Amino acid sequence: MPKVTFLPSEKSIEFEDQENLLKAAMDAGVHINASCGGAGVCNKCRIFIEQGQVQGEELPDGGWKACRTIPLTDIVVRVPVESEMDRKALARPLAAKAVSWIKIHGETLRLRSEPVITKELIDLPEPSVHDNISDLGRIRRELGQAFHLDVDSQVLYKLPYALRQGNWQVTASLMETARADHKRLVRVQPGDQVMGNCAVCVDIGTTTVSAQLVSLKGQEILAESSNYNPQVSFGEDVISRMEFSRKVDGLEILKGKIIKCLNQLIHELTDKADIAVEDISLISIAANTVMTHFLLGLETKFLRAQPYIPVANQFPPVRAREIGMDMPEHVRIFLAPCVASYVGGDIVAGVVGVGLNHHPELTLFIDIGTNGEIVLGNQDWMACAACSAGPAFEGGGIKFGMRATVGAIEVVHIHPVTFEPMALTIGGKKAKGICGSGIISLLAGLFMTGVLDRQGKFRRDLDIQRVRPGTDGWEYVVVEKEATSIGQDIVFTEADVENLIRAKGAMFAGYLTLLESVGMAVEDLERIILAGNFGSYLDLDQAIIIGLLPDIPRDKFFFAGNSSLTGARAAAISWPKFQEMKQVGQMMTHFDLSDNPRFMDHYVSCLFLPHTDLSLFPTVKEALESGNRN
Amino acid sequence: MPKVTFLPSEKSIEFEDQENLLKAAMDAGVHINASCGGAGVCNKCRIFIEQGQVQGEELPDGGWKACRTIPLTDIVVRVPVESEMDRKALARPLAAKAVSWIKIHGETLRLRSEPVITKELIDLPEPSVHDNISDLGRIRRELGQAFHLDVDSQVLYKLPYALRQGNWQVTASLMETARADHKRLVRVQPGDQVMGNCAVCVDIGTTTVSAQLVSLKGQEILAESSNYNPQVSFGEDVISRMEFSRKVDGLEILKGKIIKCLNQLIHELTDKADIAVEDISLISIAANTVMTHFLLGLETKFLRAQPYIPVANQFPPVRAREIGMDMPEHVRIFLAPCVASYVGGDIVAGVVGVGLNHHPELTLFIDIGTNGEIVLGNQDWMACAACSAGPAFEGGGIKFGMRATVGAIEVVHIHPVTFEPMALTIGGKKAKGICGSGIISLLAGLFMTGVLDRQGKFRRDLDIQRVRPGTDGWEYVVVEKEATSIGQDIVFTEADVENLIRAKGAMFAGYLTLLESVGMAVEDLERIILAGNFGSYLDLDQAIIIGLLPDIPRDKFFFAGNSSLTGARAAAISWPKFQEMKQVGQMMTHFDLSDNPRFMDHYVSCLFLPHTDLSLFPTVKEALESGNRN
Repeated sequence: MPKVTFLPSEKSIEFEDQENLLKAAMDAGVHINASCGGAGVCNKCRIFIEQGQVQGEELPDGGWKACRTIPLTDIVVRVPVESEMDRKALARPLAAKAVSWIKIHGETLRLRSEPVITKELIDLPEPSVHDNISDLGRIRRELGQAFHLDVDSQVLYKLPYALRQGNWQVTASLMETARADHKRLVRVQPGDQVMGNCAVCVDIGTTTVSAQLVSLKGQEILAESSNYNPQVSFGEDVISRMEFSRKVDGLEILKGKIIKCLNQLIHELTDKADIAVEDISLISIAANTVMTHFLLGLETKFLRAQPYIPVANQFPPVRAREIGMDMPEHVRIFLAPCVASYVGGDIVAGVVGVGLNHHPELTLFIDIGTNGEIVLGNQDWMACAACSAGPAFEGGGIKFGMRATVGAIEVVHIHPVTFEPMALTIGGKKAKGICGSGIISLLAGLFMTGVLDRQGKFRRDLDIQRVRPGTDGWEYVVVEKEATSIGQDIVFTEADVENLIRAKGAMFAGYLTLLESVGMAVEDLERIILAGNFGSYLDLDQAIIIGLLPDIPRDKFFFAGNSSLTGARAAAISWPKFQEMKQVGQMMTHFDLSDNPRFMDHYVSCLFLPHTDLSLFPTVKEALESGNRN
Repeated sequence: MPKVTFLPSEKSIEFEDQENLLKAAMDAGVHINASCGGAGVCNKCRIFIEQGQVQGEELPDGGWKACRTIPLTDIVVRVPVESEMDRKALARPLAAKAVSWIKIHGETLRLRSEPVITKELIDLPEPSVHDNISDLGRIRRELGQAFHLDVDSQVLYKLPYALRQGNWQVTASLMETARADHKRLVRVQPGDQVMGNCAVCVDIGTTTVSAQLVSLKGQEILAESSNYNPQVSFGEDVISRMEFSRKVDGLEILKGKIIKCLNQLIHELTDKADIAVEDISLISIAANTVMTHFLLGLETKFLRAQPYIPVANQFPPVRAREIGMDMPEHVRIFLAPCVASYVGGDIVAGVVGVGLNHHPELTLFIDIGTNGEIVLGNQDWMACAACSAGPAFEGGGIKFGMRATVGAIEVVHIHPVTFEPMALTIGGKKAKGICGSGIISLLAGLFMTGVLDRQGKFRRDLDIQRVRPGTDGWEYVVVEKEATSIGQDIVFTEADVENLIRAKGAMFAGYLTLLESVGMAVEDLERIILAGNFGSYLDLDQAIIIGLLPDIPRDKFFFAGNSSLTGARAAAISWPKFQEMKQVGQMMTHFDLSDNPRFMDHYVSCLFLPHTDLSLFPTVKEALESGNRN
């Protein structure tokens, strides 16, 4: 952990070995001009080493490329004045990050291991002429004392072999049912197979499918994997996929794609963990309403149009094989219940995953993914809504927007005087585009430096080359084409800004509408939980500056990661958690914002940066008024 | 109904129009020599018409053929002395028939219509933006007030169409579950389909499969059909079929055969009743343990050998489609529970079908089919056993034994002086063989006339051509080859007699063993119920004479017809009856006679006609001692 001190600001930071000095400067809140994202091609990030030793690329006319230089010892670095024209630039605060919900509320995730399918080792007396009840009767006699035992008819086929192969010692898989005094015998294996009791937990997002293999006994995550949802090729969003499903075989194609994807992921998981697929007892899936319909092959025609009716919101457990999955016949799929057409099982699982239903604090749960869904409430009540924010914060509808992969600009700092960018890409490769966190960072930076006004328009009077009229209206050049990997200038346009303002406006109007519906206001919020990958990379200050998040104390923000997957895992490990999901699904009051007049009012007021009513954003207001806008 | 008076006995009888005089004589207890079975070829049944008018065949040397002559008015008939050599011949009693259980206990079959699957017509409010719960939620809101509603996942696929096609009026099919407060939604049809709620009820016997189509609403039997069990070609009895099932694909072949047979029968039933197969809600099946295993495709390897272990005795409801039946996917099969390897669902269904479990009287329930099973008990307790009697009473193992079809000798009277037979065939066609009732009738007749002794040996000193040594030992010629349709003498051999004595001995030893096990004796029996087709054609006196049935007052005997099918129908119409079957299955104490020493003792004592201990057969003893042996 070498220590780096930047001059003239005298800011210091300790950071990871092998990390370059451009990244160190960004983390330390020091601006260094850099527009290629850290790929070493723009040659703008010149620094001078005053003390200590470094390794990296020296520039021909003196100094080092910050993006290509790493410290070997503690060092002192001087940033030349051309990168540091104004002391104010140094006042840029460190990124305000939400606290990890998992880290501080981890206890909610340590569940009692009481999965919906348990395995019991039973030793049976060998039959004789004096004790010649049926094979099933023998099992029933052993097991069925404390509860009524239902039986899967499939069990009967292998039963006589299992009993005799195991020499009358067998492992019985028992599934919980809707009633505590009823269990269902779903499998009988010869001998002791109690330890081989795993679950696959899956979050099926519109864009990404994430899966984990979990031991139901020890709760360890044995392997993880994820992939893009292959349905993407038939439409980026749920609406276009529902359109596609209307075509001949469309629904079957979409279903087949996701089934194949799940089969592959499970194959990967069992390979990674080196377990047999036979050890999987169940699959716990959380997905939005449309994804759930596609997975089961259910009609979405009526989900698509007003009044937006799903076929079902609660789904009976189905056999994996019944929907075409390549799994042993005993494996059942448990689906997180949905609430409405656009508030699905991913949200319900997320709410249970973070334990919102067990805490008294007034909490706003925000999941910004391909769409934005929100839940407001606590252990006693919950209101939820989908905000139709669209995928702008995943880069959708943004000219150079892209997913958060290598080459995506993930963070940008705008110099408050020169308006030069300091851009970092994922992987330090030449820039290809801008991902969500980069977009927010860019929008916040351009706004706070005054390059953009409160309406989201570029100042036409700035005499810099980076701000210019382009083919799609006015734009800001983030990276010149020479420094990109795509051979064209990466720009950020007024149309992009408009899209983003609409998206954040829809989210914020959603918060206000739900709060208002229960007679509360932003300042009453005791906690905000950010779900999805979104939260972990987000600079809270920047997200608040653009009006995407409410301006409340930063220590009230938490990021929960993929809470949908967390919830799916909780439901697999603990049957009561699955029951909780049902209860949560039922207790949530859904607000359809699409025809809600209060939402429309709020929405219009939100179409400013950060909002027409600046009093809602006291810290932003203060920063704007103090002129501390960088 | 013409009246016929026979001279010189002066016996009169009124009988059906179009019935011939030979049959009338048999019914009236009048002996007329007749060995061709009534086919008009032996020319032995000569009679003279003294009064009235007849139509038929006159014999060239005077008189009429009784078997080919029908009365047109009331008539007086003289039977010539050569057919009536001894007054004693006239003393032959009328056949003692068991009373129809159905006729006098019909009330037990008038059930409350509360089938396991009911249909409910529901009118739902159309969805709107203010009431946009899911399609399933809408049904659940309407139905799920009084009970918890489980849902078949298959229902979801057609649900959105059914609701909209029916303009929000639908018929929901609800299935009862093991818990009274839980029902399962198995189907939703558009509009009013409440009346289309039928069940197929089936008795799968080792030899015969009988089916009925029943309206669950009105309980009417809409159509009936039956066929041979096509598995017969792989073995006449269950043992040989279980042997066959060990071969490669053997089990699948046997399963496929019975499934195909059921498919065809159901097709016939729906054709006959002119209903759509879609109107079938469920199939209720009663079958013996082996047939049940074959139907489901379950292993019988361990059922075949000691200690005779079935895979299961109680079977969960299975989808008809799951076992390969050509039925709509909602159709489920309910299987009558079995008790043990050789006491199956047919017996349990039979017991419930006759309501044995609702009556206090000590009852012996006897089902003689391909095998013989017996139940002793009443509403409080039941003991049961399989008697391994074999199929002798169905004609199996009898040289000229055959099933009860056209050309089978069904009744025989032996003249006590001449020992000439009076034989009638089914359909009055030339004799092909002898069926069960004919065999009993023949055995009883030959014994009571002294042609056979108590050991079952033919008297060697009778100087008549009909009793002779044959290729298989001594034999009695029932029909000379000229009068048969098979071109050879139809004979009844000592080996046949031995088989029959063993068979009836096994049955009777079974009764005694069960009675003894509960400290009771034959005279304690308050009722005997004969199940299967067997009972309805049986002459009780004859069956008692040969020692097949206990010698108790004839008015205690009842025949119940196909009680297994009756039970299957009861279970279809009334879910509580299905529950009763489970209870009966569990309350029955099964006695395995195969290794029971008391059974073996009784069996040895039973290998006489009617029994070594004549005091067990007081009426037979009396007849033998009075010399009134015809």
